[in-house]
Amino acid sequence: MSAARGRRVGDSGTREAIADAARAQFASHGYHGATIRAIAAAAGVDPALVHHYYGTKESLFAAAMRLPVVPSEVLAAALEPAARAARSGPGFGELMVQTALTLWESDELSDTFLGLLRSAVTSEQAAVMLSEFIADSIFATLARVAGLETPKNSPEAEYRISMVATQMLGLALTRMVLGLPAVADASVDDLAATVGPAIDRYLTGEIPVPARRRRRRAGGH
Amino acid sequence: MSAARGRRVGDSGTREAIADAARAQFASHGYHGATIRAIAAAAGVDPALVHHYYGTKESLFAAAMRLPVVPSEVLAAALEPAARAARSGPGFGELMVQTALTLWESDELSDTFLGLLRSAVTSEQAAVMLSEFIADSIFATLARVAGLETPKNSPEAEYRISMVATQMLGLALTRMVLGLPAVADASVDDLAATVGPAIDRYLTGEIPVPARRRRRRAGGH
Repeated sequence: MSAARGRRVGDSGTREAIADAARAQFASHGYHGATIRAIAAAAGVDPALVHHYYGTKESLFAAAMRLPVVPSEVLAAALEPAARAARSGPGFGELMVQTALTLWESDELSDTFLGLLRSAVTSEQAAVMLSEFIADSIFATLARVAGLETPKNSPEAEYRISMVATQMLGLALTRMVLGLPAVADASVDDLAATVGPAIDRYLTGEIPVPARRRRRRAGGH
Repeated sequence: MSAARGRRVGDSGTREAIADAARAQFASHGYHGATIRAIAAAAGVDPALVHHYYGTKESLFAAAMRLPVVPSEVLAAALEPAARAARSGPGFGELMVQTALTLWESDELSDTFLGLLRSAVTSEQAAVMLSEFIADSIFATLARVAGLETPKNSPEAEYRISMVATQMLGLALTRMVLGLPAVADASVDDLAATVGPAIDRYLTGEIPVPARRRRRRAGGH
């Protein structure tokens, strides 16, 4: 097969080595704890090359986890247009449920999504990693699209978006994993109309936002 | 240790044999599919003895799964008093969230609950079993306490209670398994006040109840 070796083989070998190193670092240090610098060192390359190949930490995570897309980019692209009109007023929650279910159940994503959920439920290490990734990447995107402050800087925004996550992940769990018949059989539109207003309330309604929270994880970047 | 053998050893051996047989039958045929008759046959005893030792199918399931309590009994006892006053009016959802979180996080139950959730997420067989058990046993109790029709006879009641399950299990997943900081750090009272009204809306509010559903599982008893 030596004739097949072209000038790109070295590149793709390096890319793979970086993705492998990233996977190991994310698994052992979590999403927060894994640094581009440490990943580069483990792969034996310069940190600049990691940035060159993968751009953001989230893109690198997506590649390392073999996600076919970068979640927050797809989510933002899907939610942005209607969000401009609704700006987290009535109707935004319904749109979010529709978008999320359609993405999760797409041929492209459903195996990956279920794989992440399964590993998070069975491994505490994977749970920390997924939880940190959701909090950092997905939450920031959702908050921006919904017109809330950045969750990292606002305990209220973090609580509101986290409550959205409780409902959305519960919907995924019962529909796609447990297969509760009434949830699994319902149409995306019916579920969106049912759950949407609950999402709107968590985002903008009057809920008892806890005044202050202790931070449980230091989480350096 | 032969001095320790007393007159109850035979009884407890039979009880254990029945629980073992039940565990195997539930795992291979699901909660619906497993019958007292088949469990008795597998344990080599008369069906009447299964009823004598364990009473209901749910109690047998609880014993087979080594649950320290029978879930619907504990739930009913905890919810009944306040439900009599509130009858699924405002405040009932808040009470349900408080009760469920307090039960799930009790020393007695949290390991069992997380174990069931983990096995359901990783094994399709366990997912069917847990989903059928929730739908049969927990849903019927919740509907009764909330003043709804029996879910088995009413697609609307089944859909409403199932939507409650999406939110409650999502709360458990994010708080106890993923450990999303804002959810994990919140007090039970804050979560109950936040989520309660969403539960009330699912139980009694105007939601688009799907008109008819195909039954995906025949589910004989």
